[in-house]
Amino acid sequence: MIPVTDPRIEKYLLSLLPDDDPLLREMERIAREKGFPIIDRLVGRFISLLVRIKNPQLVVELGSGFGYSAYWFARAMNRGKVVLIDYDESNIDYARGIFEGSALAPQAEFHVGDALIVGQQYHDIDILFIDIDKYQYLDAVAAMKPHLAKDALVIADNTLWYGKVADRENDLDTMGIRAFNQQMFRDRDFFSTIIPLRDGVLVSQKIG
Amino acid sequence: MIPVTDPRIEKYLLSLLPDDDPLLREMERIAREKGFPIIDRLVGRFISLLVRIKNPQLVVELGSGFGYSAYWFARAMNRGKVVLIDYDESNIDYARGIFEGSALAPQAEFHVGDALIVGQQYHDIDILFIDIDKYQYLDAVAAMKPHLAKDALVIADNTLWYGKVADRENDLDTMGIRAFNQQMFRDRDFFSTIIPLRDGVLVSQKIG
Repeated sequence: MIPVTDPRIEKYLLSLLPDDDPLLREMERIAREKGFPIIDRLVGRFISLLVRIKNPQLVVELGSGFGYSAYWFARAMNRGKVVLIDYDESNIDYARGIFEGSALAPQAEFHVGDALIVGQQYHDIDILFIDIDKYQYLDAVAAMKPHLAKDALVIADNTLWYGKVADRENDLDTMGIRAFNQQMFRDRDFFSTIIPLRDGVLVSQKIG
Repeated sequence: MIPVTDPRIEKYLLSLLPDDDPLLREMERIAREKGFPIIDRLVGRFISLLVRIKNPQLVVELGSGFGYSAYWFARAMNRGKVVLIDYDESNIDYARGIFEGSALAPQAEFHVGDALIVGQQYHDIDILFIDIDKYQYLDAVAAMKPHLAKDALVIADNTLWYGKVADRENDLDTMGIRAFNQQMFRDRDFFSTIIPLRDGVLVSQKIG
């Protein structure tokens, strides 16, 4: 394991953020209690920025967990829809509860099931967010590529995988992420970059 | 000094990038030889991504150096103009030479002078890039704010300043950057985030 960003830098960055939405704080508390991995607040802010610039109409999440990232997407959008998909019914139930307790409920759709199968029901996706099992990332982008809109963004979490991609680890997930990153940088249909924020956020724009 | 990103992570990220434009490589060689600070290739890619999503018509740089960042901006734009400003005539001469040796010359304007004064000649700026002396950042954004277009982006380099902002250093530049970051996160006219890439890249969107 290699820490991506120095902890003192992370602490400084967090200190700049405004005191935020109580629902976000509540979700962060639950995540800590349950040991459930979430994109954190810094990645949430970064996603918000991309959404503000891009102004998407349709965001599809593969692997929504209990809705933390979807809530960031929805908050930053001023129209359009975010689709949450997770295989775990209790996660989706929790996410639905969070959205129904906010003004954002009309912007969200909820699905329990296999993210790659449900995801392919959607077309003209402006932002595809990938946060499923890491060995599935390559398959996910291959399956979803025909479903992306012109100039769509693919945002994938955990693409530095605790720094293991830059280390000698060769477990299934690390190898899956390495192959995914290489593919996204080699594929001439995408313009890719990885932001070394928290656990590494890949952002790729589909070319055309 | 605190290294922002672990060097092994940086090396891995660089290994993913395609072999690029010979003019970029030449500028990187000159920068190393002269010890001239440039945004590096990873920041260049990130800026390209923002430009591709945003599709700006007018980019104004305060502090262009010898044109490395401007070249990244121009390469990523499919129309529009990038304005280079630097106080050092030899820097601007070198930049002009680089652009004239490429297909990008019609997209660039060159100025020698005080960046804050020259910059204010422009209006409806879609992206403002700030890379001048660090103690001037606050003044720069105050002076340029009325010249920004709706939803404009402000991109400022060196906003983690070798990690010194998160350390106990209190020199003029470090204090200048700290004050600038605080202001950009507090000002309700901007939505701000800092990307811990190389020396820290602040990206703020003007709200409305």
